[in-house]
Amino acid sequence: MIIDCHGHYTTAPAGLWDWRKLQLSHAGNFSARPTISDQEIRDSLEGAQLKIQRERGSDLTFFSPRAGSMEHHVGDAAVSQAWSRECNDLIHRACSLYPSNFAAVCQLPQSPGVAPANCIPELERCVRELGFVGCNLNPDPSGGWWKEPPLTDKWWYPLYEKMVELDVPAMVHVSSSCNPAFHFTGAHYINADTTAFMQFLTSDLFRDFPTLRFVIPHGGGAVPYHWGRYRGLAQDMKRPPLKELLLNNVYFDTCVYHKPGIELLLKVIPADNILFASEMVGAVRGIDPETGQYYDDTRRYIDAIDWVSAADKKKIYEGNVRKVYPRFKR
Amino acid sequence: MIIDCHGHYTTAPAGLWDWRKLQLSHAGNFSARPTISDQEIRDSLEGAQLKIQRERGSDLTFFSPRAGSMEHHVGDAAVSQAWSRECNDLIHRACSLYPSNFAAVCQLPQSPGVAPANCIPELERCVRELGFVGCNLNPDPSGGWWKEPPLTDKWWYPLYEKMVELDVPAMVHVSSSCNPAFHFTGAHYINADTTAFMQFLTSDLFRDFPTLRFVIPHGGGAVPYHWGRYRGLAQDMKRPPLKELLLNNVYFDTCVYHKPGIELLLKVIPADNILFASEMVGAVRGIDPETGQYYDDTRRYIDAIDWVSAADKKKIYEGNVRKVYPRFKR
Repeated sequence: MIIDCHGHYTTAPAGLWDWRKLQLSHAGNFSARPTISDQEIRDSLEGAQLKIQRERGSDLTFFSPRAGSMEHHVGDAAVSQAWSRECNDLIHRACSLYPSNFAAVCQLPQSPGVAPANCIPELERCVRELGFVGCNLNPDPSGGWWKEPPLTDKWWYPLYEKMVELDVPAMVHVSSSCNPAFHFTGAHYINADTTAFMQFLTSDLFRDFPTLRFVIPHGGGAVPYHWGRYRGLAQDMKRPPLKELLLNNVYFDTCVYHKPGIELLLKVIPADNILFASEMVGAVRGIDPETGQYYDDTRRYIDAIDWVSAADKKKIYEGNVRKVYPRFKR
Repeated sequence: MIIDCHGHYTTAPAGLWDWRKLQLSHAGNFSARPTISDQEIRDSLEGAQLKIQRERGSDLTFFSPRAGSMEHHVGDAAVSQAWSRECNDLIHRACSLYPSNFAAVCQLPQSPGVAPANCIPELERCVRELGFVGCNLNPDPSGGWWKEPPLTDKWWYPLYEKMVELDVPAMVHVSSSCNPAFHFTGAHYINADTTAFMQFLTSDLFRDFPTLRFVIPHGGGAVPYHWGRYRGLAQDMKRPPLKELLLNNVYFDTCVYHKPGIELLLKVIPADNILFASEMVGAVRGIDPETGQYYDDTRRYIDAIDWVSAADKKKIYEGNVRKVYPRFKR
């Protein structure tokens, strides 16, 4: 079985975006629900994610709301709450229509400066009532201004306690950037991945939460490329070796869109810590003229590597995902 | 000849740091000069950078003030001006004592919210009067809050006009971070590299300045690892191919502290765009237990690669540095 642990509903029907516009124009004082039919959901998926799954031979995608649209920085906590609920409900509907193709991962109703504990009710609702298997956690709900405490600060602990209790991991994933310095998919996403890893490296978070698990997407940002730097920084700081310090808790996905990058990832990061992903339909949608294949067809890069054992590939494609997301059972 | 294009005076004598403390405690109203003897300069270099040059067989280092201490966010523009001048003068003295070991690169007296044109007099002084061959440009003088316009904004153009006139490149290099989200050498440096590259990718800066040149240090941040992502993003945005768009103007150094990272860099980035560097004595000072060698001994990684031609290695070690820094003549 091939499980893609990182997919967003980037093709959601117009009804969702129409609702969002109405929500914002009503300044949060808005109780209508989006008007989206099951057929519209089917239409939005059949020609996109489902078609691509078939073409590329992946079986199931962990499916969450569009990351760039989480927009935790827009409006207040109540706006974020209502928007997250609608996005998550739509994910639940999509996953219910195609239970063998999708498993649900939720957006959290974060808001700048608001305690992450505020997200617990929505996380519990999604996991306990709707069968979601994980969540996306934004380390920078300000959208590029980085005003929140590091992910290792006690500010985040109540949410982590709930994640541990529910046995769900978080993918560390920012949303769009309203800081003109940072292009969202080209800089902000990758920077956030790198930043979160370094926050983990300098803290004892996983001594406090030995079973807490994070997936760092986009191949871990810059981390595997600079693995020697991170090993050396940890060593200079008298921290334990990275394997001991982090690798029971931190995982990397395979959203790296060329073969040399995937090769590096598989070379330096233990196979136990890599989860297959493509983030389709996502940040990069074109065909690479150097290969004639889609940039984000990450399975091709992995399949083409002959020095990774079949057992390790099975871990990357399925075993590790099941280990990190134990609520996924199929 | 082997030229290391990226070295900071991290071992500067105590007199410099004492002076800085006095400067800050006098709130800028301070006219004394640092008390540092030639012998102290020699002592600070003989057992460190010069010893390491000999041990590793590099010939000459492009030497600039300690990046983490540029601290453009501390004090106002006058404080930054006086501090930059002292740091640059000290670099000039070190390079004058060891003219066959060092060439000088200057710190710019940037200050948050102050027009970069303000840096022109110090750049001119360093280049025209003191023989400096380049400068370090901080894309985020706020120290981790990213409040300046992107490097591609016209805000920066007067400085670029002067760089073009003087025919000197800039290494894009942030200083320390006062944002608790960003560890300075583990996140802020690498993020800045990635961010600057994406700013360049989305702009027509090099149409306006066809001969302007930037070196992106630390192996280009996350960029080579995600080269497919960047090629794909440019393509989706209908930008020209990266080679055409950027690679006459943007160069990467080799400060990547493990062999798989260097291999990736040399595999995906054209040899014409790679400049040898180690940033010693710098961010990572230990010995890698996996190799028994210093993490930052980047020459070993390059020398060990047998699929890069001798001609390309000569470019990386010397030719490209001379091309990018034409004021360096030796």
